[in-house]
Amino acid sequence: MNNTPFTYIEGGGVTSPQGFSASGVYAGLKKKDPDLAVLYSQVQSAVAGVFTINRVKAAPLLVTIPRVAAGAAQALVVNSGNANACTGEDGIGDAYEMGRLTADLLDLPEDRVLVASTGVIGVRLPVDRIAAALPSAVAGLNREGGVKAARAIMTTDTVSKQAAVSFALGTHRITVGGMAKGSGMIHPNMATMLGFVTTDIALRPQHLQEALRYANERSFNMISVDGDTSTNDMLLVLANGLAGNDPVEPGTPEFALFREALTAVCIKLAKMVARDGEGATCLLEVRVKGAPTEEDAQKAARAISASSLVKAAIFGRDANWGRVICAAGYSGAEFNPNSFDVHLGDLPVALAGRGLEFDEQRATAILKEDPVVVTVDLHSGDAVAVAWGCDLSYDYVKINAAYRT
Amino acid sequence: MNNTPFTYIEGGGVTSPQGFSASGVYAGLKKKDPDLAVLYSQVQSAVAGVFTINRVKAAPLLVTIPRVAAGAAQALVVNSGNANACTGEDGIGDAYEMGRLTADLLDLPEDRVLVASTGVIGVRLPVDRIAAALPSAVAGLNREGGVKAARAIMTTDTVSKQAAVSFALGTHRITVGGMAKGSGMIHPNMATMLGFVTTDIALRPQHLQEALRYANERSFNMISVDGDTSTNDMLLVLANGLAGNDPVEPGTPEFALFREALTAVCIKLAKMVARDGEGATCLLEVRVKGAPTEEDAQKAARAISASSLVKAAIFGRDANWGRVICAAGYSGAEFNPNSFDVHLGDLPVALAGRGLEFDEQRATAILKEDPVVVTVDLHSGDAVAVAWGCDLSYDYVKINAAYRT
Repeated sequence: MNNTPFTYIEGGGVTSPQGFSASGVYAGLKKKDPDLAVLYSQVQSAVAGVFTINRVKAAPLLVTIPRVAAGAAQALVVNSGNANACTGEDGIGDAYEMGRLTADLLDLPEDRVLVASTGVIGVRLPVDRIAAALPSAVAGLNREGGVKAARAIMTTDTVSKQAAVSFALGTHRITVGGMAKGSGMIHPNMATMLGFVTTDIALRPQHLQEALRYANERSFNMISVDGDTSTNDMLLVLANGLAGNDPVEPGTPEFALFREALTAVCIKLAKMVARDGEGATCLLEVRVKGAPTEEDAQKAARAISASSLVKAAIFGRDANWGRVICAAGYSGAEFNPNSFDVHLGDLPVALAGRGLEFDEQRATAILKEDPVVVTVDLHSGDAVAVAWGCDLSYDYVKINAAYRT
Repeated sequence: MNNTPFTYIEGGGVTSPQGFSASGVYAGLKKKDPDLAVLYSQVQSAVAGVFTINRVKAAPLLVTIPRVAAGAAQALVVNSGNANACTGEDGIGDAYEMGRLTADLLDLPEDRVLVASTGVIGVRLPVDRIAAALPSAVAGLNREGGVKAARAIMTTDTVSKQAAVSFALGTHRITVGGMAKGSGMIHPNMATMLGFVTTDIALRPQHLQEALRYANERSFNMISVDGDTSTNDMLLVLANGLAGNDPVEPGTPEFALFREALTAVCIKLAKMVARDGEGATCLLEVRVKGAPTEEDAQKAARAISASSLVKAAIFGRDANWGRVICAAGYSGAEFNPNSFDVHLGDLPVALAGRGLEFDEQRATAILKEDPVVVTVDLHSGDAVAVAWGCDLSYDYVKINAAYRT
């Protein structure tokens, strides 16, 4: 990390920035483990967010989206174990109630509390259990609570996901921390992806939104296939300004530095989500270069990393690069089909549009690495993109064959 | 089949129509089983075709597409075991050579022979083996050869796929027959899908093309996700006119009847391809109704039938209808998210946009049927569509983890 202007904070997360506290408790929505998280800032924060583009949006999104649009928030309540999606008017009422209960306990205006849910679709949210558990969640808010909160938002995740970085901004130290959950890695965001980021930098909500869009396009969007989003996906960021800097403005080096730090946290979280794909045995990193535009590079990288045939081949440690280029070919990316190269790690397996004879043993050894890195040079321009996924294993099927029951 | 104006021919295939003969032999491209098929019409035929939209097109397509565009053909040669894709200029030469050898043996002009390949990508086609096996393939052409030809085009298919229907057209009897291969059922046509249809009806090539487009949109296109096509996909139809009818013209009842017969053969083949998805234990039939347009209905039906999470739930006999509506939601189809119904078989599991309490045992019993029928009513119009897929099993992963090696 020598060439980055910021420092990764070992074990850091949403409570690393100044003024944030969090907690995670058990409300009885999952079979065990914490399933209710609260995140709180001691002062009102600027807020920004990106949300699922699925036509069917879960109830908590209907509550949270307008609050984020208003630009100010101070707390967040999240449950796992139940998505509160496809639950009709009752479900919307439940989402409002979950936020109102949290606001009352924290003595906040109702519209300063954001609400999120993840879990099974189409089952009414048991708000009574959340009501019963919320007082202990609020009482338990603390500066080391990020770890517990990150555990409370997990569903089929096997590890909790946190990341944090800090950097100097003049005489001020800025910290950015985050947590995420996600699973269902064939099309990553067909299962719910939640990401929550905190920072103590001062900036205006619309500028925070601008930075978040930039970060999201290069992180969470690169572990997903465009348009394949679940009913509940959201990525939120709260900036409480307690670092004491003058508000940063777009177009300045300070803003660019913050944007890169935010992107670094989001990429780290996104890679953890991809690596923890259901049943995954390795992280798959797909680098596309030589594309005519960044959009073409992103299309190709995403299609390759999301291809079930590519992912199954990686699981089998089979150097089936034909599937890689087939996915690039149907991705919609523009390129010359007679001039692509494919590398597995540093081993060339196709050059100038055609297969090479290569050392199968070396290829197999490379495919046993974690991450497995696949690089495609389209030789059709200068644009690059990186996408992440995981392999497709027997356990993916096992987990998803009986998720609900 | 009482309400159809045509008769299904038990065991019928590409050699059911008058004047077609076929054969299948072993050329040594696969480890065993026939891998080289020849199809021949005793007179020149009108020809039509649809081809992959993948940017990377295999060599045989570059040979066959212009010949189909010219509208006339008399023979087809197909190998399995090697896709002749990503093989550069040499591969194109090999595809021409394969056609030329066949034309010489059949004493036909070179451009009246169509060429197709399926199998592994990026490995040079061993044309010498094809040259050695072709004389016996041509010598073996016979009126019962459809069965052997259908076996020779298989890759990971577990059963060969044939269908045929006949119907009366005035005093003439018209027959339509076909064979297909396909596998890789998460995105069905990421692995190669080949379909070859023959008929003895008389009509002009451009009208044959019009009928084929109609049939393809309602059959093979409904077992696939738009844009996800392999390097080798093709669907061809030859019409040799030996039934002796006056050429049928679009806009007439005769043309409509033929178009429906062609569609019926294509649907039967497409369903066999879907049912034989790698590792599949059942056929999944997704019926979408109440869509604003047929395109919306098709988008939703295809997205549901292609969803890995839906398919894994079907394998697990888990009535996870939330994944069904989630897939409809990201499909791009227009609908009101507060007014959809979902049925598993005849069991309602969601009505008016929200989940119902339902009999889990009954749902599980329905999910053990073959086919499993899922119906979604979007209550947003009158358009309907049907798509087919299969479940996602452990064996899918097993087969695709080590296909190449």
